[in-house]
Amino acid sequence: MKKIGVVLAGCGSQDGSEIHEATLTLYFLDKLGAEIQCFAPNISQWHIIDHYSDKVQEGTDRNMLIEAARIARGAIRDLQELEIDSLDGIIFPGGFGVAKNLCDFAFKNENCQVNQDVANIILEMHEAGKPQGFICIAPVLAARVLGKFHPELTIGNDPATAKILEDWGAVHVISGVDEMVYDPKHKIVSTAAYMLGPTISKIAIGIEKLVAKVMEV
Amino acid sequence: MKKIGVVLAGCGSQDGSEIHEATLTLYFLDKLGAEIQCFAPNISQWHIIDHYSDKVQEGTDRNMLIEAARIARGAIRDLQELEIDSLDGIIFPGGFGVAKNLCDFAFKNENCQVNQDVANIILEMHEAGKPQGFICIAPVLAARVLGKFHPELTIGNDPATAKILEDWGAVHVISGVDEMVYDPKHKIVSTAAYMLGPTISKIAIGIEKLVAKVMEV
Repeated sequence: MKKIGVVLAGCGSQDGSEIHEATLTLYFLDKLGAEIQCFAPNISQWHIIDHYSDKVQEGTDRNMLIEAARIARGAIRDLQELEIDSLDGIIFPGGFGVAKNLCDFAFKNENCQVNQDVANIILEMHEAGKPQGFICIAPVLAARVLGKFHPELTIGNDPATAKILEDWGAVHVISGVDEMVYDPKHKIVSTAAYMLGPTISKIAIGIEKLVAKVMEV
Repeated sequence: MKKIGVVLAGCGSQDGSEIHEATLTLYFLDKLGAEIQCFAPNISQWHIIDHYSDKVQEGTDRNMLIEAARIARGAIRDLQELEIDSLDGIIFPGGFGVAKNLCDFAFKNENCQVNQDVANIILEMHEAGKPQGFICIAPVLAARVLGKFHPELTIGNDPATAKILEDWGAVHVISGVDEMVYDPKHKIVSTAAYMLGPTISKIAIGIEKLVAKVMEV
């Protein structure tokens, strides 16, 4: 039974992990018989967005691990407890939480810094030759950490974002929402999901292919 | 294109809508080409549960509509705006939010009262002869509101819960997680989902069948 880590960053598209992407990742992993291990950093989210009004909720604080536990139904651990040796692969679903909490891409763009624990995990998984899946905006993490190795990946077709990833050294591949891009040299799998939309059943096609590739490698 | 309402009750298995059940409902509806309309009551949740520690988070308040907007990616309306005429069917995913927020079954058991807006919707959909799907613990709503019509439904195989539903007049059918129960007379569809578990890909089988039946009727 393959052991696959899923790294979450809160619960909700605007300030945490995108719920559909995260849930579909768990669904397809479980369908293929994976043993799933969920993780999230045990730190506060950058901010809280009211997903009904789209406005920042001031004066509140939410912890990424506690919120991500909603998606994982409590079966989740502190990211600092993740052991590379105990995983056969890892997947990072998308959502603004990736760009606000796991790194600061949403605010710093090309000068973005990746959370040190996340950066270490991506580097060590790469060194260990284990497959890593990045969904939606999460390929930013792979491009920022592994850019010097020139991994091939996709964030869909947004030219501004793609240019930043290429400036870091990554090779961006334009792709559709029903596709995944696989770089066999670096075992990086990516799919655009809600970077392109348009609906949940469409993003599921690319996510299912990504999960299958991570399980197969 | 069939218009299907999805009624949510927050965001998270312990105090709101069960995220996997709600997301899979949206996924299968979208896959079958439904036009989805999400709704939630615009009122506070009963309480907030920390899904990591499983303890009540004191001193905080969350609104069901605002939290459910996380699952719906903002595409959600106040339950009071729901118009029966504009829907071809409706689905209630499960989660403790159903038993704590849409009714008080979690606290009052056989003396449970259903939120008046929710009760009106279920009664009016029944009168209009439109299909209604109830997932996990949500069949409690159907049994409480429509018990006098003796609808056939399932909450899996828990004898204590089944007995209460039967005391209200419903006919409980024992079923597996990969099944749905359909009452053609009252157009009530139900599936046990996380009342039985055990994992997301298993509950998806029953939910997919429930969604297909609601779309077909």
